[in-house]
Amino acid sequence: MSLTALPPPPDIVRSAYAELTVTDLPRAHWFWVEVLGFVVTKADPGALYLRGYDELTHHNLILREGPQPANGLLAFRVRTPADLDRAVEFYRYLDCRTVRLPAGTTPGIGEAVRAEDPLGFTVEFFHHATLADRLQQRYDLRRGAEAARIDHFNIVVADVQEAYEYYTSLGFGLSETIEDRQTLYAAWMYRKQTVHDMAFTGGAGPRLHHLGFYAHEAHHVLRTCDILGSLHEERYIERGPGRHGVSNAFYVYLRDPDGHRLEIYTSDYYTGDPGHPVLRWDVTDPRRRDFYGHAVIPSWYAEATTVLDLDGNPRPTREIRQVEEAAVGADGFPVR
Amino acid sequence: MSLTALPPPPDIVRSAYAELTVTDLPRAHWFWVEVLGFVVTKADPGALYLRGYDELTHHNLILREGPQPANGLLAFRVRTPADLDRAVEFYRYLDCRTVRLPAGTTPGIGEAVRAEDPLGFTVEFFHHATLADRLQQRYDLRRGAEAARIDHFNIVVADVQEAYEYYTSLGFGLSETIEDRQTLYAAWMYRKQTVHDMAFTGGAGPRLHHLGFYAHEAHHVLRTCDILGSLHEERYIERGPGRHGVSNAFYVYLRDPDGHRLEIYTSDYYTGDPGHPVLRWDVTDPRRRDFYGHAVIPSWYAEATTVLDLDGNPRPTREIRQVEEAAVGADGFPVR
Amino acid sequence: MSLTALPPPPDIVRSAYAELTVTDLPRAHWFWVEVLGFVVTKADPGALYLRGYDELTHHNLILREGPQPANGLLAFRVRTPADLDRAVEFYRYLDCRTVRLPAGTTPGIGEAVRAEDPLGFTVEFFHHATLADRLQQRYDLRRGAEAARIDHFNIVVADVQEAYEYYTSLGFGLSETIEDRQTLYAAWMYRKQTVHDMAFTGGAGPRLHHLGFYAHEAHHVLRTCDILGSLHEERYIERGPGRHGVSNAFYVYLRDPDGHRLEIYTSDYYTGDPGHPVLRWDVTDPRRRDFYGHAVIPSWYAEATTVLDLDGNPRPTREIRQVEEAAVGADGFPVR
Amino acid sequence: MSLTALPPPPDIVRSAYAELTVTDLPRAHWFWVEVLGFVVTKADPGALYLRGYDELTHHNLILREGPQPANGLLAFRVRTPADLDRAVEFYRYLDCRTVRLPAGTTPGIGEAVRAEDPLGFTVEFFHHATLADRLQQRYDLRRGAEAARIDHFNIVVADVQEAYEYYTSLGFGLSETIEDRQTLYAAWMYRKQTVHDMAFTGGAGPRLHHLGFYAHEAHHVLRTCDILGSLHEERYIERGPGRHGVSNAFYVYLRDPDGHRLEIYTSDYYTGDPGHPVLRWDVTDPRRRDFYGHAVIPSWYAEATTVLDLDGNPRPTREIRQVEEAAVGADGFPVR
Repeated sequence: MSLTALPPPPDIVRSAYAELTVTDLPRAHWFWVEVLGFVVTKADPGALYLRGYDELTHHNLILREGPQPANGLLAFRVRTPADLDRAVEFYRYLDCRTVRLPAGTTPGIGEAVRAEDPLGFTVEFFHHATLADRLQQRYDLRRGAEAARIDHFNIVVADVQEAYEYYTSLGFGLSETIEDRQTLYAAWMYRKQTVHDMAFTGGAGPRLHHLGFYAHEAHHVLRTCDILGSLHEERYIERGPGRHGVSNAFYVYLRDPDGHRLEIYTSDYYTGDPGHPVLRWDVTDPRRRDFYGHAVIPSWYAEATTVLDLDGNPRPTREIRQVEEAAVGADGFPVR
Repeated sequence: MSLTALPPPPDIVRSAYAELTVTDLPRAHWFWVEVLGFVVTKADPGALYLRGYDELTHHNLILREGPQPANGLLAFRVRTPADLDRAVEFYRYLDCRTVRLPAGTTPGIGEAVRAEDPLGFTVEFFHHATLADRLQQRYDLRRGAEAARIDHFNIVVADVQEAYEYYTSLGFGLSETIEDRQTLYAAWMYRKQTVHDMAFTGGAGPRLHHLGFYAHEAHHVLRTCDILGSLHEERYIERGPGRHGVSNAFYVYLRDPDGHRLEIYTSDYYTGDPGHPVLRWDVTDPRRRDFYGHAVIPSWYAEATTVLDLDGNPRPTREIRQVEEAAVGADGFPVR
Repeated sequence: MSLTALPPPPDIVRSAYAELTVTDLPRAHWFWVEVLGFVVTKADPGALYLRGYDELTHHNLILREGPQPANGLLAFRVRTPADLDRAVEFYRYLDCRTVRLPAGTTPGIGEAVRAEDPLGFTVEFFHHATLADRLQQRYDLRRGAEAARIDHFNIVVADVQEAYEYYTSLGFGLSETIEDRQTLYAAWMYRKQTVHDMAFTGGAGPRLHHLGFYAHEAHHVLRTCDILGSLHEERYIERGPGRHGVSNAFYVYLRDPDGHRLEIYTSDYYTGDPGHPVLRWDVTDPRRRDFYGHAVIPSWYAEATTVLDLDGNPRPTREIRQVEEAAVGADGFPVR
Repeated sequence: MSLTALPPPPDIVRSAYAELTVTDLPRAHWFWVEVLGFVVTKADPGALYLRGYDELTHHNLILREGPQPANGLLAFRVRTPADLDRAVEFYRYLDCRTVRLPAGTTPGIGEAVRAEDPLGFTVEFFHHATLADRLQQRYDLRRGAEAARIDHFNIVVADVQEAYEYYTSLGFGLSETIEDRQTLYAAWMYRKQTVHDMAFTGGAGPRLHHLGFYAHEAHHVLRTCDILGSLHEERYIERGPGRHGVSNAFYVYLRDPDGHRLEIYTSDYYTGDPGHPVLRWDVTDPRRRDFYGHAVIPSWYAEATTVLDLDGNPRPTREIRQVEEAAVGADGFPVR
């Protein structure tokens, strides 16, 4: 893949929604809607369309019932209808398979283009979406994690440098990294004016590491944990609460009943200025992944969601050569 | 009334519950339960028994349907069963009418003594109460203001000095005052180890000024307001959010559909040490009532709930000679 | 002024900094730096260059000593150096006086263009700025209001419709309004992906209504008030804390020792999607200015900062015909 | 030791202060005062007397320079001067060595009695203390963890049942336990109206497990961690932030430069009612120690501070038979 003479990429506005396959839709409804309080825009027999309380796009998440947990697609909103044509041209140049979908193929979403991207993920681009009811000032309805909107996708890739270069070619800016002199272990990239829309975690990829949802204040993160403890469902809390060094965000990571990982995330920062400088974290700084210095539990590095191709078949993964955990383990900060 | 040779008073533990007459019980249920999230311990045809999420006593509040908004009684928990006898003796000495009630007269409350106290309020003393379910760690159930427990009663009295002396005779400690060289305008007194169980506001008394409910953090106070705004029921927010100078607590005052005033209150301080010193606020310090210096709206000083005698008849009120608002108005800090 | 055939406007990134004339620089230092905790990027004999803790641009605020309180300029960052030329062309077409300033005229700011805009304000456009130290993760240094960065300028204009049209011509998007069938009373407009970079308050204009600074959580707003109360300097708290209906933000308004108004502001929302819908508040909705329904104090509507022209002379103001307060007063929601 | 026919114990009000030996007083000053923001009541050449912002007692903590890290004493405030005599009688009956100290032996503390208690700790009882300045409403001064006051002592004892019985004989109430059918693994006991003044952790005792300091809201706990991360001193954060199942409190555990453990602790509950019920946690409930289900790091169970006798000599420890970690490890919830 040559990224040097690419056609203009689609003008991506932000990460907009993801589709997850869940094996037990009522159970997923319990977790995402009843416990975490996501708003149901639409409920079909085999799928739920969910969003956060501030979200005006039709949905941030589709939970679709299926035989195996998987990530069906990651969808980006684009600036104009013409960006769909640009997406087709862009991926054609990259020899990536694409498909055009008429408006309404996905409820609430206008005409769309899907592609199997060079990293092995199925991505979608759309411009038009049905406006959702404005619930931001319906504090009476808020429950659970009080997620406001989707914030980012974090993906597992075997080659972080390759992912960085590919997303650079798509017009993403780089906000933060974890690296040493030899290796880029992880990177955070943005289109909207926050720390990221996309992040790359080194590992056996392609897999989906997690979906990040924005909440307004740290006490919403704590409340999420308190509710899970109250229900004696604390096993769904994988990691945190804590603050990231990278992004400065206060976080908790949960795993849904199918093992899909999500993050409730608050308090990152504005990146919209021209020439926004990159913050580079040394891989040996224990604060990079947890500003309070706590080691990351192994499952957080090791486990992730299988990705589906355009036909709905699982993607094989390839192993990584240089993993962050190994690099860190060597300097006396053992993973526990 | 001579307070010098009184018999020993009942050993009061704390302010425990109040009874309010409401004219429309379904409407009161909407406000206290659906909007503010108070826990229903028991619902009878003509009455609701409510409590906060941390509360282990059967109830903190009885809402009883009746023809006129009123305060039926203020109830104190006492240390031992023998304190009921002490209460009878104490009020007999004061020539106050009393009545003994067998256990279960009020659901969840054991044997009790009621009295018409020297200030004109109907007060109750009880020792035994049915334990309520422990809901403190049921964060999944919490809604609304997330009130934890009742904290205090604030009463309007025509003579604050008299109220102070009477409650001193009942063994209450003094934590804070508003005063000048001539006059005690307001006082805060405690049995439990917080700033107060009782407070006295000068005005036409006896009337009930408000019931104070404790919440754990300031964001619960803000959320209470946000919910009322969301429902376009912001008219129930009378004053605040803000911080009191007196007590240091962060507060909001609401008025229920019958005009009963309640406070959601957080962040006061420990008063349990022997010799706890009194904090005396000068009546001209604008921070005494609002630490941020905002003037108090006139309704907060002027309006309060009628008090019922032991027969359920409204108590007449007598006027006050020296009101705080007038004292303050004179020094250039006009009430708005 | 015709806005129909305008040359392309400069591509404005965001509201970046303002200059205020203060009459007593040590006193201003006390207020802005010692009490509110703004970061001093640079201190000159006659001027202070301040910023928030997250801010990477050299400064968000210049406090310059002078004979009368005034607003010297409002500065916008632009996307590219070429946008400076566009600014010159744009204002030339509007018959507005402009001046080009070489890099370094203002410390930390590259080449700039200043103009006397059609509304009577002195505005500046710059692309290059010196990067400030990244202090975002220096929680050990944070004090006071913990302002993160500048968020917006709010200006008083005699004709809100005119201001709306002019800023539309500059490429700003409209997020919220206060209006009735006849009149646009106030409007909020944005370039960065938040509710606003600019807001217009109807009144005798041109004047600067306030500078808005972003903080991360509501407890920072409360802390700001607590500190002023602690110092018995609560007179600097003009309005709030409270939540706005417009923007959903939690706020407090302060007045500095020269009467300049600033807002500590948190919790607005993302506006970056194409076709972001406008939220229109009816002027009679009491929640528009305070979601908790409290009336706005008269000084907040009446008082504002004088604006200087390019020569440093005060701008005369013209009166407004339709003021929001009058419209509101008529429907039974009196201003107090 | 027979606890059946004991003389009346001293009427203990609360846990009041502790003395810790530190090996480098300037380093301890850096940690406790500069970083954590404790208030210095008095600084002597070899000792610091510190307190929280709400505290009206002279000090909550003495840091005394010495050759080895140790806990010199745990001090309780008693109700009346006569309780000092009761303390002498009480410990004489228990064959425990005591000493009487004249007022002023410890700065700010009146006449006192010290004893080597049956568990091997040096405890002090005092009634009179010098009132400290009221700083509660000096928000302008607050820094660091913003600790309000001392809350509790947590001690390591080889026999939790024995500690429970001894403190019962001192008049402490039991609020919560960790247990199974055979063993009491840990217990929380109170005199003031909170969850505890004393807690017992099973292990090689006598040792001091930690000092607990109360803060008002969870964001103060997070801020404490943020500051340590900012300074790249995150190694002082041992465990948390998180919520305890036991006590419901939100917490973080730190280790000072000498390894002394402290907890910043918020949000427990009122225990002042007669007949307050005990909350018993099964040792296999993963939420007992962390409501979010995270395993406790081994150092938290294993490490603690040496205790000094009345002569300042280290106390030998004895091993425990049944440790909580082992009991838990057996049921599939391994300590990590």
